[in-house]
Amino acid sequence: MVNAFLSTPLWGSLLQDAGTAEAYSAPAFTRRMVAFERAWTQALIDRGIASEEAGQSALAAIDRFDPETSDLASGSERDGVPVPALVRALRAGLEEDAAKAIHSGATSQDVLDTAMMLTVLNCLARFEVQLADIIGQIDSLTDDYGQRALMGRTRMQAALPIRVSDRLAAWRAPLSGALTALPMLVARVGVVQAGGAVGTRDAHGDKADEVVAALATHLGLSVSDVWHSDRSRILDVGHWLTKVVGALGKIGQDMALMAQQGVDEVTLSGAGGSSAMPHKQNPVRAEVLIALARVVAGQQGTLAQALVHEQERSGAAWAIEWMTLPAMFEATGVALATADGLLDQVTSIGADED
Amino acid sequence: MVNAFLSTPLWGSLLQDAGTAEAYSAPAFTRRMVAFERAWTQALIDRGIASEEAGQSALAAIDRFDPETSDLASGSERDGVPVPALVRALRAGLEEDAAKAIHSGATSQDVLDTAMMLTVLNCLARFEVQLADIIGQIDSLTDDYGQRALMGRTRMQAALPIRVSDRLAAWRAPLSGALTALPMLVARVGVVQAGGAVGTRDAHGDKADEVVAALATHLGLSVSDVWHSDRSRILDVGHWLTKVVGALGKIGQDMALMAQQGVDEVTLSGAGGSSAMPHKQNPVRAEVLIALARVVAGQQGTLAQALVHEQERSGAAWAIEWMTLPAMFEATGVALATADGLLDQVTSIGADED
Amino acid sequence: MVNAFLSTPLWGSLLQDAGTAEAYSAPAFTRRMVAFERAWTQALIDRGIASEEAGQSALAAIDRFDPETSDLASGSERDGVPVPALVRALRAGLEEDAAKAIHSGATSQDVLDTAMMLTVLNCLARFEVQLADIIGQIDSLTDDYGQRALMGRTRMQAALPIRVSDRLAAWRAPLSGALTALPMLVARVGVVQAGGAVGTRDAHGDKADEVVAALATHLGLSVSDVWHSDRSRILDVGHWLTKVVGALGKIGQDMALMAQQGVDEVTLSGAGGSSAMPHKQNPVRAEVLIALARVVAGQQGTLAQALVHEQERSGAAWAIEWMTLPAMFEATGVALATADGLLDQVTSIGADED
Amino acid sequence: MVNAFLSTPLWGSLLQDAGTAEAYSAPAFTRRMVAFERAWTQALIDRGIASEEAGQSALAAIDRFDPETSDLASGSERDGVPVPALVRALRAGLEEDAAKAIHSGATSQDVLDTAMMLTVLNCLARFEVQLADIIGQIDSLTDDYGQRALMGRTRMQAALPIRVSDRLAAWRAPLSGALTALPMLVARVGVVQAGGAVGTRDAHGDKADEVVAALATHLGLSVSDVWHSDRSRILDVGHWLTKVVGALGKIGQDMALMAQQGVDEVTLSGAGGSSAMPHKQNPVRAEVLIALARVVAGQQGTLAQALVHEQERSGAAWAIEWMTLPAMFEATGVALATADGLLDQVTSIGADED
Repeated sequence: MVNAFLSTPLWGSLLQDAGTAEAYSAPAFTRRMVAFERAWTQALIDRGIASEEAGQSALAAIDRFDPETSDLASGSERDGVPVPALVRALRAGLEEDAAKAIHSGATSQDVLDTAMMLTVLNCLARFEVQLADIIGQIDSLTDDYGQRALMGRTRMQAALPIRVSDRLAAWRAPLSGALTALPMLVARVGVVQAGGAVGTRDAHGDKADEVVAALATHLGLSVSDVWHSDRSRILDVGHWLTKVVGALGKIGQDMALMAQQGVDEVTLSGAGGSSAMPHKQNPVRAEVLIALARVVAGQQGTLAQALVHEQERSGAAWAIEWMTLPAMFEATGVALATADGLLDQVTSIGADED
Repeated sequence: MVNAFLSTPLWGSLLQDAGTAEAYSAPAFTRRMVAFERAWTQALIDRGIASEEAGQSALAAIDRFDPETSDLASGSERDGVPVPALVRALRAGLEEDAAKAIHSGATSQDVLDTAMMLTVLNCLARFEVQLADIIGQIDSLTDDYGQRALMGRTRMQAALPIRVSDRLAAWRAPLSGALTALPMLVARVGVVQAGGAVGTRDAHGDKADEVVAALATHLGLSVSDVWHSDRSRILDVGHWLTKVVGALGKIGQDMALMAQQGVDEVTLSGAGGSSAMPHKQNPVRAEVLIALARVVAGQQGTLAQALVHEQERSGAAWAIEWMTLPAMFEATGVALATADGLLDQVTSIGADED
Repeated sequence: MVNAFLSTPLWGSLLQDAGTAEAYSAPAFTRRMVAFERAWTQALIDRGIASEEAGQSALAAIDRFDPETSDLASGSERDGVPVPALVRALRAGLEEDAAKAIHSGATSQDVLDTAMMLTVLNCLARFEVQLADIIGQIDSLTDDYGQRALMGRTRMQAALPIRVSDRLAAWRAPLSGALTALPMLVARVGVVQAGGAVGTRDAHGDKADEVVAALATHLGLSVSDVWHSDRSRILDVGHWLTKVVGALGKIGQDMALMAQQGVDEVTLSGAGGSSAMPHKQNPVRAEVLIALARVVAGQQGTLAQALVHEQERSGAAWAIEWMTLPAMFEATGVALATADGLLDQVTSIGADED
Repeated sequence: MVNAFLSTPLWGSLLQDAGTAEAYSAPAFTRRMVAFERAWTQALIDRGIASEEAGQSALAAIDRFDPETSDLASGSERDGVPVPALVRALRAGLEEDAAKAIHSGATSQDVLDTAMMLTVLNCLARFEVQLADIIGQIDSLTDDYGQRALMGRTRMQAALPIRVSDRLAAWRAPLSGALTALPMLVARVGVVQAGGAVGTRDAHGDKADEVVAALATHLGLSVSDVWHSDRSRILDVGHWLTKVVGALGKIGQDMALMAQQGVDEVTLSGAGGSSAMPHKQNPVRAEVLIALARVVAGQQGTLAQALVHEQERSGAAWAIEWMTLPAMFEATGVALATADGLLDQVTSIGADED
């Protein structure tokens, strides 16, 4: 689950991504749940479901809430999600009307799924920059070494000579494909979840769709049909991550093979030292990339178990997502940083033909 | 791998899909490999790389080859792929020029990957019809029972009443989403593989791109960059299958829950009998759908291992695809047929309000 | 599921194991189900539950039944298991007393699980011989080449010189461990399943335990508690297979690395040819071993999903086993044959020091 | 990887196990690595490889090292493992002879694998107690409610009446099996890793085996053959965890089904509240158990990928273990605590027959 073993005092940034860890931290995630509640209250005011006065009271209470110091733990332990405790905290001390201007007609899953999507968007935005940087690094390597000769190798055997640029183009293609596909994924996941208690989105009668539209506007997201039990959107996110980490794993695998003695197709500066053999230079980052690709591949197979989502809402299938998707993001963040570091270590690829 | 246990004499069509098995059968797959070779020879003639005479000789030899009775087995055992033996068989007895008009500039992976994509397209075309039928069945059930009451259930607990139409809409959404997404998938996979020995597509110099364009035209496919080592296209196929089977698994899970005594939300005709309790009616098809969803989910996690594809071409990563993707297609075919059968068994859903 | 793509006309024995396919074939599996029914009837006679006359009538009917030509397909399609149809076929035309001497007090899962275990034992017996042979091959290679030098390689880097015997000992260790552990596994799985309709083993009152003991004796198996919903035994089988195929996959991975140009630590005779590069010798069997190890690893993760086995008996969790465990056996059978073939191809390992 | 989302401020102890997190924390794990180095130095002194004086100097330096405040992070980032930095820190400021009395003849993997096994043993010891407690809780429930009637349910259908004790016995069996099997697992994993640079355990010539024996004695572990590349031991640990969590997942699944309205076979006190429906009582802990079982099942499939361990030592395969096994321990710890909590919530099972 949490895997305390990979913590930073022991491994530094080798196996952790601070950006993703921050995005999924309790304060950051709570902020996004609060953002949902604030936008929901605003939507209730906008559509005249909450009175201006009750609504403003509610908004003030929401703005007073401090996600940094909030403690939703005991609530989660009891309720299985932090939302009921959050709603109680937001409503604490409010008059009945103001309290009713918070969360009414929404359900825990609306809050949690929407906050999850905001977190996903946050991570994807960082990954987009990192992915573009890696592609830039590959392009630089192509500029510097692209014309050099490399033995083309198929089925682990020397086949026919190619150029370094051919190998680099093969590394680039799936990453570039992922970057190109990203806007479509962002559009797909940039939606609110708003179904209410049993996913019928009818708590506010005729105004229900307007409330959801206003909610979406306030959050900068799009409207979508209720997706309480249709988790294909989540699996699409995992699929994209799997492809990115898989493409980086291929680079790692190639680098590890190229760095072998007798093959000697790449030189890496500052590769890892050995406690037993000080002369060795281990292609540490290449290995980490391979491991991450295999781990994330397996996680996608687990995440897909969450598609069997019973009835209107499944706590069991839902929890599989929490245990898996954030870990896939963290692994992808590590993979992107690791690939960046690995490509930076390259001081030569291919054979100088002079 | 093959899982002889699921064979038809023992299980009938319960755990096998004849359509997919036929599509992936040796004769059918060989026909598609031969189609590649024929289109390639035509392309060589079109672009003047093979002379008209040599080319026609080659085409005649290709047309004489009988995929039904061909035996590529011993070749595969030696070479790890059936293509070298196929090429030898096609060239047998030809003059040198005619022999050279077959396969020259192509490689085994070009043939096998292209034939795989033709097979994928064949299966997806069948699945499209089946998927539309299932959606139609759900729509019929909505017409018949949609207005009936059903207890909305969240986290395995009775929540608030909904309509049967709400539950059915939740079943329909991911299937309809998959159907809508299918043309984009078909476009993505409807491409040739044509890279030559080391993926550089340069065997025919200036004319290389023209040859590939002609190949694609003759096969009714599109041109794409070489994807020898970029297997994200294959994973996209698996992702789509996973989502379809997952959505059907959710229907199965709901049906199994609805058919429980004490819940009694669905009546199924002709459900399965028990050897020990003749009075029982087991929701056999619902169970099969759940099992398939979990199995295909896991297979997608395995298929993603194939992204770590070393160097210009990996026999090991490639073989993972052969062992996994066709099995995912067969499972999806079974799931579609099973869902169709299950929905047909429904004689009542929800509570009659009279 | 079935993966028609891997069929023998296309791939020969490269991706299929005839022995396992035969063990899991419909006639062979049906024979084992019939063996259960025969032993059960005998047990009912032994304990005086069936009269001698009715019992002999029943046995005669059972012996007349022909598993080779039986068609249980339509029964399976309806009931989700072939057992109700089998019982009907065995009882056909019998007097009531004789009919009652067949299957009374047993349930479908008793028959199917026991037949599965008999099949597992059959396969494990073959694998034991194959595993011992492979260990023998490694020992022969050690005799022939063990004293030669080899570069010890850690983290994909040349480390310090070792002997060929060191590498071979590392290959041997997990295989030898699996062989040593086999008798304990055989003891664990060599048990009958006999719980009756709801797993309480009480259909025959005071004589229930005696009936089960007699059943076990007639089948050459041991008695065990009812394990209808405790599938850890099945997962233990998968675990053993996973370790065997994983250990063979390590050999495949090493061979592929050793066969690289520039490394040149092994020479393989008769390695695979290429359609584009006749000079190449692809380490086909090594690649297949790697692929199998990764596929079986994933299958074990899927098989473990079957542990979540609801209530007294789950059709859904059970079907996951049918879709997975036999396929793991076939993959293991292929891996054993492939490793045998690969080790046979070795004509040299390590550096001749002369 | 790390999955910051599951952190305690947000979820409390619902999705985290403090005991396992502590066992795998940087200080605790570092302490175990230091314990290896101390035992190794002692062994070198015992066997006369290090002089008494140099050895005592070395031991004093090791005892001065503070795992709580050590920072091995930058070393891990460079070397891919914390061991080289640890060894440098331990040797800092020592005379050459004393420095040589630390780690000489050992390698990073010896330290890390041995510390991993010590951590595994620590966790298993806690789990043994927790497992026994859960079995005790089941026995208490059997005492209290065992004689009550329950509908036996097979394939999700009411079958025949059983006793509550029958269902509870089915829950108990695989847990009791795991407890019984634990000593054998402990014996299997309670071993040192000691192979040296390339796994040949020959750095100290004739005394090599004696050094390893002394190392084992000082650590309270057993000697074993070098297992640098044979990871079946690690997979055995994962297998045991998978079976435990799977057995608990079955309890969770049953509880969720029993708690359904219309079925009403169990009453749980203090089940989770809903933000939208205050009247609901969600079986939160039951759901968490199901999710954990499915996640750990998938992780075992990933862990098995690490069996394909290339050459003398693979950094890539090894890192898969770090990313997976500790997470499986944490999930198991959560599952054990969750099951304990769930069983405690039971206020009634089955139908009171009065």
